[in-house]
Amino acid sequence: MAKIREECGVFGIFGHPEASNITYLGLHALQHRGQESAGIVTSDDGLLYEHKEMGLVSDIFTEEVITKLKGTNAIGHVRYSTAGMSHLKNSQPLVINHSKGQQIAVAHNGNLTNARTLREELESEGSIFQTTTDTEVILHFIAKSKEQSLEKRVIESLLKCKGAYSLLFLTHDSIIACRDPFGFRPLVLGKLGNSFIVSSESCAFDLIEADFIREIEPGELIIINKDGLQSFMPFPNTGHKHCIFEHIYFARPDSYLFGDNVYKVRKEFGKQLAIEQPADADIVIAVPDSGVPAAMGYSEQSGLPLELGLLRSHYMGRTFIEPRQVIRNFGVKLKLNAIRSVIDGKRVVIVDDSIVRGTTSRKIVKMLQNVGAKEIHMRISSPPMKFSCYYGVDTPNDGELIANSLSVDEINKYITSDTLGYLSLKGLLEAVERSNKNTSGSNFCNACFTGSYPEQLVDKADKLQQLHLFDR
Amino acid sequence: MAKIREECGVFGIFGHPEASNITYLGLHALQHRGQESAGIVTSDDGLLYEHKEMGLVSDIFTEEVITKLKGTNAIGHVRYSTAGMSHLKNSQPLVINHSKGQQIAVAHNGNLTNARTLREELESEGSIFQTTTDTEVILHFIAKSKEQSLEKRVIESLLKCKGAYSLLFLTHDSIIACRDPFGFRPLVLGKLGNSFIVSSESCAFDLIEADFIREIEPGELIIINKDGLQSFMPFPNTGHKHCIFEHIYFARPDSYLFGDNVYKVRKEFGKQLAIEQPADADIVIAVPDSGVPAAMGYSEQSGLPLELGLLRSHYMGRTFIEPRQVIRNFGVKLKLNAIRSVIDGKRVVIVDDSIVRGTTSRKIVKMLQNVGAKEIHMRISSPPMKFSCYYGVDTPNDGELIANSLSVDEINKYITSDTLGYLSLKGLLEAVERSNKNTSGSNFCNACFTGSYPEQLVDKADKLQQLHLFDR
Amino acid sequence: MAKIREECGVFGIFGHPEASNITYLGLHALQHRGQESAGIVTSDDGLLYEHKEMGLVSDIFTEEVITKLKGTNAIGHVRYSTAGMSHLKNSQPLVINHSKGQQIAVAHNGNLTNARTLREELESEGSIFQTTTDTEVILHFIAKSKEQSLEKRVIESLLKCKGAYSLLFLTHDSIIACRDPFGFRPLVLGKLGNSFIVSSESCAFDLIEADFIREIEPGELIIINKDGLQSFMPFPNTGHKHCIFEHIYFARPDSYLFGDNVYKVRKEFGKQLAIEQPADADIVIAVPDSGVPAAMGYSEQSGLPLELGLLRSHYMGRTFIEPRQVIRNFGVKLKLNAIRSVIDGKRVVIVDDSIVRGTTSRKIVKMLQNVGAKEIHMRISSPPMKFSCYYGVDTPNDGELIANSLSVDEINKYITSDTLGYLSLKGLLEAVERSNKNTSGSNFCNACFTGSYPEQLVDKADKLQQLHLFDR
Amino acid sequence: MAKIREECGVFGIFGHPEASNITYLGLHALQHRGQESAGIVTSDDGLLYEHKEMGLVSDIFTEEVITKLKGTNAIGHVRYSTAGMSHLKNSQPLVINHSKGQQIAVAHNGNLTNARTLREELESEGSIFQTTTDTEVILHFIAKSKEQSLEKRVIESLLKCKGAYSLLFLTHDSIIACRDPFGFRPLVLGKLGNSFIVSSESCAFDLIEADFIREIEPGELIIINKDGLQSFMPFPNTGHKHCIFEHIYFARPDSYLFGDNVYKVRKEFGKQLAIEQPADADIVIAVPDSGVPAAMGYSEQSGLPLELGLLRSHYMGRTFIEPRQVIRNFGVKLKLNAIRSVIDGKRVVIVDDSIVRGTTSRKIVKMLQNVGAKEIHMRISSPPMKFSCYYGVDTPNDGELIANSLSVDEINKYITSDTLGYLSLKGLLEAVERSNKNTSGSNFCNACFTGSYPEQLVDKADKLQQLHLFDR
Repeated sequence: MAKIREECGVFGIFGHPEASNITYLGLHALQHRGQESAGIVTSDDGLLYEHKEMGLVSDIFTEEVITKLKGTNAIGHVRYSTAGMSHLKNSQPLVINHSKGQQIAVAHNGNLTNARTLREELESEGSIFQTTTDTEVILHFIAKSKEQSLEKRVIESLLKCKGAYSLLFLTHDSIIACRDPFGFRPLVLGKLGNSFIVSSESCAFDLIEADFIREIEPGELIIINKDGLQSFMPFPNTGHKHCIFEHIYFARPDSYLFGDNVYKVRKEFGKQLAIEQPADADIVIAVPDSGVPAAMGYSEQSGLPLELGLLRSHYMGRTFIEPRQVIRNFGVKLKLNAIRSVIDGKRVVIVDDSIVRGTTSRKIVKMLQNVGAKEIHMRISSPPMKFSCYYGVDTPNDGELIANSLSVDEINKYITSDTLGYLSLKGLLEAVERSNKNTSGSNFCNACFTGSYPEQLVDKADKLQQLHLFDR
Repeated sequence: MAKIREECGVFGIFGHPEASNITYLGLHALQHRGQESAGIVTSDDGLLYEHKEMGLVSDIFTEEVITKLKGTNAIGHVRYSTAGMSHLKNSQPLVINHSKGQQIAVAHNGNLTNARTLREELESEGSIFQTTTDTEVILHFIAKSKEQSLEKRVIESLLKCKGAYSLLFLTHDSIIACRDPFGFRPLVLGKLGNSFIVSSESCAFDLIEADFIREIEPGELIIINKDGLQSFMPFPNTGHKHCIFEHIYFARPDSYLFGDNVYKVRKEFGKQLAIEQPADADIVIAVPDSGVPAAMGYSEQSGLPLELGLLRSHYMGRTFIEPRQVIRNFGVKLKLNAIRSVIDGKRVVIVDDSIVRGTTSRKIVKMLQNVGAKEIHMRISSPPMKFSCYYGVDTPNDGELIANSLSVDEINKYITSDTLGYLSLKGLLEAVERSNKNTSGSNFCNACFTGSYPEQLVDKADKLQQLHLFDR
Repeated sequence: MAKIREECGVFGIFGHPEASNITYLGLHALQHRGQESAGIVTSDDGLLYEHKEMGLVSDIFTEEVITKLKGTNAIGHVRYSTAGMSHLKNSQPLVINHSKGQQIAVAHNGNLTNARTLREELESEGSIFQTTTDTEVILHFIAKSKEQSLEKRVIESLLKCKGAYSLLFLTHDSIIACRDPFGFRPLVLGKLGNSFIVSSESCAFDLIEADFIREIEPGELIIINKDGLQSFMPFPNTGHKHCIFEHIYFARPDSYLFGDNVYKVRKEFGKQLAIEQPADADIVIAVPDSGVPAAMGYSEQSGLPLELGLLRSHYMGRTFIEPRQVIRNFGVKLKLNAIRSVIDGKRVVIVDDSIVRGTTSRKIVKMLQNVGAKEIHMRISSPPMKFSCYYGVDTPNDGELIANSLSVDEINKYITSDTLGYLSLKGLLEAVERSNKNTSGSNFCNACFTGSYPEQLVDKADKLQQLHLFDR
Repeated sequence: MAKIREECGVFGIFGHPEASNITYLGLHALQHRGQESAGIVTSDDGLLYEHKEMGLVSDIFTEEVITKLKGTNAIGHVRYSTAGMSHLKNSQPLVINHSKGQQIAVAHNGNLTNARTLREELESEGSIFQTTTDTEVILHFIAKSKEQSLEKRVIESLLKCKGAYSLLFLTHDSIIACRDPFGFRPLVLGKLGNSFIVSSESCAFDLIEADFIREIEPGELIIINKDGLQSFMPFPNTGHKHCIFEHIYFARPDSYLFGDNVYKVRKEFGKQLAIEQPADADIVIAVPDSGVPAAMGYSEQSGLPLELGLLRSHYMGRTFIEPRQVIRNFGVKLKLNAIRSVIDGKRVVIVDDSIVRGTTSRKIVKMLQNVGAKEIHMRISSPPMKFSCYYGVDTPNDGELIANSLSVDEINKYITSDTLGYLSLKGLLEAVERSNKNTSGSNFCNACFTGSYPEQLVDKADKLQQLHLFDR
């Protein structure tokens, strides 16, 4: 039940008679990667058709809308963004006209770390910006490139960009897919009949019964057009830095990415957690839904029985007015309820994936105390999160991360649990390696735990200020 | 993942300054009992205020609506109904004017089994009906009663009615709550500060931090007004017949009803199932979400590890257009996805709460086969459902229930599992009794398994025809 | 620009393959008779289909809705009602089930003057009421009648009702149309191909190119079914009392009713007004749109040139927030603007159809003063309105009618015009007679001017109280 | 009842505490200039706030939206556009970020005649376009300008643009208003208390009780900021070419522009038409609403009585399905109805402002014939429209204008009137001059009648192709 959010998911298909409908289904499967807005752009007979709206995929893409999105090629995007930036015009795919009336659409998962610098550079040369997204910067460079072919224009542009990008471009006759050299965000390749598909996660393939082919490599750029698929490796080799939080929390448990199944890895975290942070307790419960796989691993490893101690409501509303006669932990209660008959009189291990600000964990602990828990042993299936992410995850500033300023003991005191245990970084990476022998823990970015960002952060300074400049 | 649906949930509060907001929260907690329409009626200074709409509770009751529902007393209702009857005018609470301009509102969970006969009787005497609900019949009798007090009018009316009713009435100065003598549907009493609360399930009390007092007894009628609460037992003693399906599937796992916690009972079913229907297998998985508690019990009893083999999507849309290039089991795929790394090569026990028509079970088995299950052992935590319910559950006609015409072996063949095992009725009732020593299995209605309806069904004849007559 | 409102319009068609679409178009033409809600009920193969919504006809009846309203027979209704009564459940047609599962729908234009008494009588016998409309009373009587045929049941019921009713009933195989013996509200008969049509006003026939046949007579009841049309005159002859305000303000100028064309009559009022209330002025202007025909008549008779001095905006919004820096006459300004170049320095005759509370007239006079009018001579094409209407028009209570308490001189002072002249009752009726030689002025109800109500008002007492009792 | 449409209206206010609400009211008064989308941008404390939506002003700007549009300065825009271009992203004001993070918003009424050429030039230099509007071109030039002050940047940019523009720019601390040297579109200056206001038409001032100061001169640029108002005349003098169709049809009759009141001028056209094109007839009627002032002038000059022969419905719906049993002239009938009692047996002069394709006129003539007109004399208060407009009016291509290919006699035959008479160009200009002695007819653009465009049309070639290139 982490409070941090993935910023985007992308999906594309080339050469399918129902491109927009397939893309709609793909985005539905990627809905967990962004619930704020969604868009699809299709190409048909040299023209691009687009539809973007604020809201959930299944509310936006009615049959009427799908029908208007003509053509056999499509890319789509789901987006989450911070409150201030939630304008429809910032939603993606972003579509522009450039040289000779050509149209290009782009869908971006990730975040450029030198966007502000590049933007100021472009603005000083007279470029105008209509969105507050970093993605618009890429399009300016593509339009300004003197290269002839689109792939060379894209490459030239991306060589100027630092940070995380899993990108899909759509033109009137091709799709280009590209992943940054570090491979921060996932991007996978599939096939439905004769049509190539690209998606942020493989779970989208399952829904439409497409075949998983392979992951697109970090630093790889592929072009899909009527002649088939071509692959390029145009970027300098930097080594890989996959986002470990995709495995810890973001990705769907049924997806396969960074060489492994997410659920399997997550359960391995739980086992390792049980080894490192045992507890003298009666039962194990999870903070649903994200804590479930690790709790299952913890239970299996420790031999403590797994129980359903917290129930999650799946009917969430737009707004609730808290009654004046204050209800303790009202916000969390709308989502979770503790089952007294399970908890009462028990020594409880409760497993969650991470602690961000600590406020939710504190409320959950109090809920368990209120239904009679005898002892509460909080176990976290990742190391303390101390540093903000600049690669496409919506984390608070360092100062708001509880582990940035408090020790584990102090956090334990704050959330009022009896004991608190985090998974160690070493254990986390060992678990990843144990789950898949061919995976190396060194291929994962651990900046949110260590502050060791893979590259120098050009625009870091102050994350908040950056947003302020770009947006209101 | 049963395909049968509860028809209603009710909630009421007397003497609270935020009656409509509290009722809104209560209905939100009861949302699983009816997702088609919802309504709240409040009373303030002698007048009733109402708001009803099609849709989900949290979409309907905006702050603006809540504010207009003035007064310190309120009753609310969530409703599911079959397609043909889904008119707003059938939604509840139903409000009428009767003698001397008095207003009365009613919210009903259950189903009268002699409604058609009573309705024809009333119509032949010149009564008019504006809804197609059985509830309207009760109001006609109350209006026609020569008794002076409302409670006597209500009692006189209900003595004519057969079947299931957990009822809430709201007048300008009181709430009346009543449960049929068999006690088919649950109804519980709570208190928030000095205000009495009545709810279909206790989970609504947890959200608003109200105290659970007791269940309202089968055959009990209580009046709540400014003088407090008065209880009556005006109906002949018939013995109790609680709906066992509340425990099997309908109620929320965190609720306490019929003398026990639902999750605890459900897990006991799973344990008993493991004893009666063991399987030589590698793992146990659940059909989420309803099969989870029984699967946990099965795993605990059998020692087979519990795994997350099917993932449920919680983003459901209004409509999806199936691509022409047919996707196998498209409807189920939108809700469930099988995790290959868990299932592949395994002998799998899969636990579900019930089988209705068998079509969904068949699709789920096929999904597991497609991701490489070596063997599939379907286990059902209730006996074969053979007979339609006439007490407030939306079941298909007998003929559409697969167990009505096929044997267990034949069903196993149809759904293409390797083995299929149901919990026995004896085992089901023993499990209920084991979970709570004070509970008797004979207090539960088992008509859906045995066809032994507690009372003669006056209007049975043909369930479909009954609907046809009342509705279009 | 009168502030009083007609309460309803009705339309029906029998035996047409596109009954719902034709009814939709008919209601669109009758939209001026009620803008708050609209409904259509159709009958097909023994079943009734209904759709009712708050809002404008063209917003409610989308192609999807029209398609669902199957069948060859339909009745429709547009409704305006006072704020407190604006519930969807009060909208019409009202559909009920009564003896032997029969369904009947009713659409009503008018108002019963003994509804409260009848309702109390029914309630005391045990009837329940789900709406606060007087129309529901009629349905109760029909259901209770011991007569066999529907027409006899209707007649028996209406013999108990006093007041104004132009009614349409729809059953599974017939339409019944009926007009009260006084003929307060209009009701006309037409034919489209072989299909009979009934409508409040003839303007609906023009849109669909139906032929006008005749007016349905006061006190006439007709049945339309597959055998054709039958006419009955079952009510005692009372003499006619048509609502003169249909001619003055309500009806569309292009309609033909009460034996004459509305525009022609309205222009005759203007001529008579010029004879009775001449003015030494430079120009004549109208308060648009309702004052235009009378202003044309005034100009023609007086020889004073007609000018466009006030422009009406046809883009009206839901809500406007008045700026804090107060704008004088903001409400009227949103609807009307005075043209300075026309008014400046001129002596202006301004013609309106009526004055209700006087507040709007006062604002209009001030607008003209602000753009430089030298003199303002207000002329009203009807006599002073002194008494509230009980026959289907939404007028304020007597006490709120400015002419009930103030003399013409005092009103002139209040609205700050230089002179004020009303048409005399004698002149009004002479004008009606002059426009059509066969019309007698004595056939019109003049109760709003004289207080001489055609029948004793059973429930009069206090109009406000009546509403209070029925509604909240 | 012309079928051509104005493309935009603009409104701005500087230094008012309720800037967004005043702008909302201003746009409401300008609604006739664009009904497809509307937007407001405000500036507060260095930040811009925007809201744009498809739809009518009063539906878009709810109290909630107005409240969010903070600040004391605002500009707004209403827009109509051809079907293909009706994307929200093309709606205005357009807001961009440019050098040093500065924000600028622009609202444009008019059309640049060299936009395609300029756009291709910019694209070839690497600029990207996110809308298909010509307005985006201006923003690119402003961003690229090396000038320091915004006014110099704007001037430098506009010197590259040809065609029609009445423009409002909003920055964090100023409003700039500018009108092209020909003065095609109107733009007027007013004052509300101490706050300067700019509007397309003066009618917006009346609603908010602002004072009219003067028209902004063709070729004038003004800057309004906290220091007051500064005026510049930076463009070469070209002579004036006001759009005569503002007087003929577009502008509201109560507006004052191009030195005169629109109603007064329009009535003068009617008088001149009566002189040039008399008719031996019984009555004069107008095609409402736009033909009314000219019909009044025709009646006054000719002495023929003015009658209400055609009634216009002001309840227009989204969609109507024409019944299969074809209704003649269905589309026109939904808007207009002929009054038989006025027309029957009469020789009728019918006055309209213009004929575009001729199809509507033909239908109107047929409606009059159907209600018994003896003779029909169509009179048009402007010369035959033969050429498409490139200065901000949505006219069809030359080939679709009936007068481009048919003579007056042939048009008369096509629309089946008895006689047809147009106002001469000479008479039109004389009427303008007669209405205001200080006005010269040579100051008006008459290209739609003569094809003499004031400037060479750079991008003319094919108007349709131009749209195709920019849009899909």
